[in-house]
Formats: sequence, structure tokens, C-alpha cells
Amino acid sequence: MMRIAALQMQSVPGDVDANLARIEAAAREAKRGGAALLITPELCVTGYGAGEAITSLAEPASGAQVKRLQYIARASGIAIIAGFAERDGADIYNSAVFVNGDKEPALYRKSHLYGDYERSLFKPEQPGNCIIEFGGHRLGLLICYDVEFPENVRRLALAGADAVLVPTALPAGPSGTFIANHMIKVRAFENQIFVAYVNHAGSDGRFTFAGLSRIAAPDGTLIAASTDDREELMYADIDPGAFAASIKDNTYLRDLGSA
Amino acid sequence: MMRIAALQMQSVPGDVDANLARIEAAAREAKRGGAALLITPELCVTGYGAGEAITSLAEPASGAQVKRLQYIARASGIAIIAGFAERDGADIYNSAVFVNGDKEPALYRKSHLYGDYERSLFKPEQPGNCIIEFGGHRLGLLICYDVEFPENVRRLALAGADAVLVPTALPAGPSGTFIANHMIKVRAFENQIFVAYVNHAGSDGRFTFAGLSRIAAPDGTLIAASTDDREELMYADIDPGAFAASIKDNTYLRDLGSA
Repeated sequence: MMRIAALQMQSVPGDVDANLARIEAAAREAKRGGAALLITPELCVTGYGAGEAITSLAEPASGAQVKRLQYIARASGIAIIAGFAERDGADIYNSAVFVNGDKEPALYRKSHLYGDYERSLFKPEQPGNCIIEFGGHRLGLLICYDVEFPENVRRLALAGADAVLVPTALPAGPSGTFIANHMIKVRAFENQIFVAYVNHAGSDGRFTFAGLSRIAAPDGTLIAASTDDREELMYADIDPGAFAASIKDNTYLRDLGSA
Repeated sequence: MMRIAALQMQSVPGDVDANLARIEAAAREAKRGGAALLITPELCVTGYGAGEAITSLAEPASGAQVKRLQYIARASGIAIIAGFAERDGADIYNSAVFVNGDKEPALYRKSHLYGDYERSLFKPEQPGNCIIEFGGHRLGLLICYDVEFPENVRRLALAGADAVLVPTALPAGPSGTFIANHMIKVRAFENQIFVAYVNHAGSDGRFTFAGLSRIAAPDGTLIAASTDDREELMYADIDPGAFAASIKDNTYLRDLGSA
């Protein structure tokens, strides 16, 4: 069993210092709440809607932003997953980093960019598995639109992930509400894994977000859920043993065959 | 636009004549209701829970059961999809047949058998696409557990199906309720197609069914839904034009790439 925390966060577009300070405060609070890991939204370090500023604020994984996240993780005694704009030479990726004290950070780059806004700013990565062994679990990483493709979650589940963690930036509207209220549960159920889907709150001037962050369990129930679009720190316990009956009865991975 | 009818049906286990008579009455009623196609549940010709009787009642697609379904379709002026036990030499498949007047019937064999009961009675078919061109639409066929695997629905959608029709036998219980209330909608939304999921009603002595038949539209909304587990004839209009905004905005098939 591992307790995780999810920060539904209102990033300040273009203000890296303010956003890192918000993450630091949440890391300390989450540690007090008993969490071993804090998950924050997509591109929360720069703000999702920061536009062209993202290009100038993008940094390599060896840069000051990730170093600051490592410092926060070490100082607060909790691992952190944060979305940031990653520069690699001339390319910028929509990435998420996992930091855990002095350990080497783990990096995931989004494969499925959404819409013209993202495609104008980022290069997509080839779909691939980033699985982090932490706290006795195998944690797969995806970002936002990636999780809407069942293929991406299935690939991680078949590779042994028992939870998939998803920083996101889901806009308000009927499709967003559907994704939060139905699709996230189904991604968990059809693989019998946990799915944590962590969204932005409020508006950043360019986008208005749905909020509605969720953590779904293998049986499709929600073990954490924001009911609105405001900032909120949520907790859930990742405990496959508590869902052993569902995992035993719904043998999708075993029965998949050559589908 | 094409109107379809779905019969949430209480089959009589082992009584083929009674079940064909029930289908005939529904076909006439559905025709009066303006439907061009009637969909009935998995194995409704023999009853799903008929057990060993299924082995003796199984017939080839050229047999009397399918001929009778063809007669019913011709006499009532409506196409029919019905689940039956198909004998092919020594093998028995869990199949669904599409009959339309004097045209050659189309046949789909279930690829993903569920549980020991089905595996003791049937041979699984390799996953494959059965797509029927009818009424200006491309209708894919799956049976029950098949639809719970996103891979099977995706394969049909990529092959051009704009609706997937699913005779089923979904037992009552928490997993069944989850599948009916969340998964069917998500299968439609993640492919931007229609999904008709047509279940048994009541109990057949061996199984108690969830009812909860549904027809979901590309935007994930339900355009037909049984609220309980009783017999019911439902109608829905398959009209992709009515969901053009959702289909335009949710470009999963185009964005899938190499996921």
C-alpha cells in the first residue's frame, strides 16, 4: 500500500517561480498527509497556457527547474511527478519528470499531442513505456491526451504497471466532462489497474480547465475525486489487495489473446 | 439515417421454437415502429443458459434456425441480427447471424469467450472483422465479452465501421453494471461511432442478467437505454450527421498514429 497525493493546481502562466513555490507548499502538505508521492498537472511548471513563453522557459532535464524539483522532493521527503517543457537541443517536448531525492530523475515525453496549440509548441515522442518502480509498485506515466487512447494504457499494463499516473490539462466542456466521468474509470477497469488523472484548476487566461481530477481503482470506482474546478490536494491509497476480488474476476490481460 | 430496434429479451432455455416466435413478434413490432434492423441478444435462439442442450441444438448456418430467421426477416420486411449456436463439423461456435430477406446471411463468431461455462461449450474464433454494409452504414459485429476489449472495437472502427452491434449476455452484478453504464459509452466515444449493446432480460435458471441494454452515440450519450432487467423493445436512430460536432472535435482515429 502506498498513499499518493494529487494536486489539482491553478498554475500561473509563465511564472516558474510561483508554480514551483506552489508545488513546494503542496509537497510539504502531502508529506504531512502521509503521501509518498505527489502528482501535479501537465506543464504545471510553466503553466499550460503560457503560449510562446513556453519556448523560452523550456529547459533540459538537467536544468534548474528539475534541480529545484529534486531539492523540493529531498527537503519535503516525498517523491514528485511534475509536468514541464523539456528542451532537447532544438526540440521541445511536453514532458513529465519523476524526482525522488538524489536518485536519477525519470522522464516521460508525451506521444499524443492534442490540437494545434500543442503541435505548434512541441515535438511528439514515439509511444513508449516509462515505468517507475517505487514504493513496491510499478507506476506507468502518460500525459493528458495519451490516456484517451486505450492502446497506451494497455501497453503499460501489459508491461506490468499496476498504476498509471497522468498529469493532464483537460479543458472544461462536454468532452472533458465525459473523459473525466467515464473514460478514466474505464481505463482502470479494462486493465484492472489504478489510474490517477490530475488536472489544472480554473483558467490561465488562454484555457479554462475542467478540474474533475480523479483517481480510479481497478474495479472502476473512484478513490479520489474533485467535484469542481478549484485548487485541491487529494489523497488515495494505492492498494491492489483491496481490489483483489475485481482483479481476480476481470481477467482482461489474461484473456486478451491476439485481439 | 437508419432506425434500429433492440430487443432486450428473456429467452426460454432450450426452446428454440418459443425463442424464434418471440423474435418474430418483435420483428413485426419493430417494423411497425419504423426500424430497418432488429438486434437480439447473444445465443437468444437456444437461450444463453441452456447448458448441454446447446450442444444438441447447435446448427450450421445453413440449417433450419437460420432459414427460419431468414423467413421471419422476409415476412416482416426487416433485417435481423440474432445470436445462435453454430455447428461447423465437430466444432460449435458462439455466433451471430445477420439475415436480410433472400440475401446471403452474414456470420460472426465470438473471439473472446467468457469464463468456464462458455469455454466448455464453444470454440473461440480468431479475432476478425465482420462488417455488414446495410442502410447506408457499415455495421461491425461483436458478441458480449468481445466488446470489453478496446482492441476489438478499434479494429472495426479503423476498418470503417460507423456502428458496432453487440448481442450480449451480461450477468447482473457490479461488473455488469459498470460495463453497461460506463464501458459501452466509452467504446463509442473513443472511436466516435455508435455502439448497440443488447442484453438478455430476467433469469434463465442458470444466469440472472443485468438487462441495461444500451445504444450509445459517438459523443458518449445514450440514444436508447433500458433502465431495468425486463423485456423491452427499444429504438434508436443511427445518424452520424446528428453527431458531426463530436466526430469533428474528437479525432482519435486520425491522431492514433503508432500507439
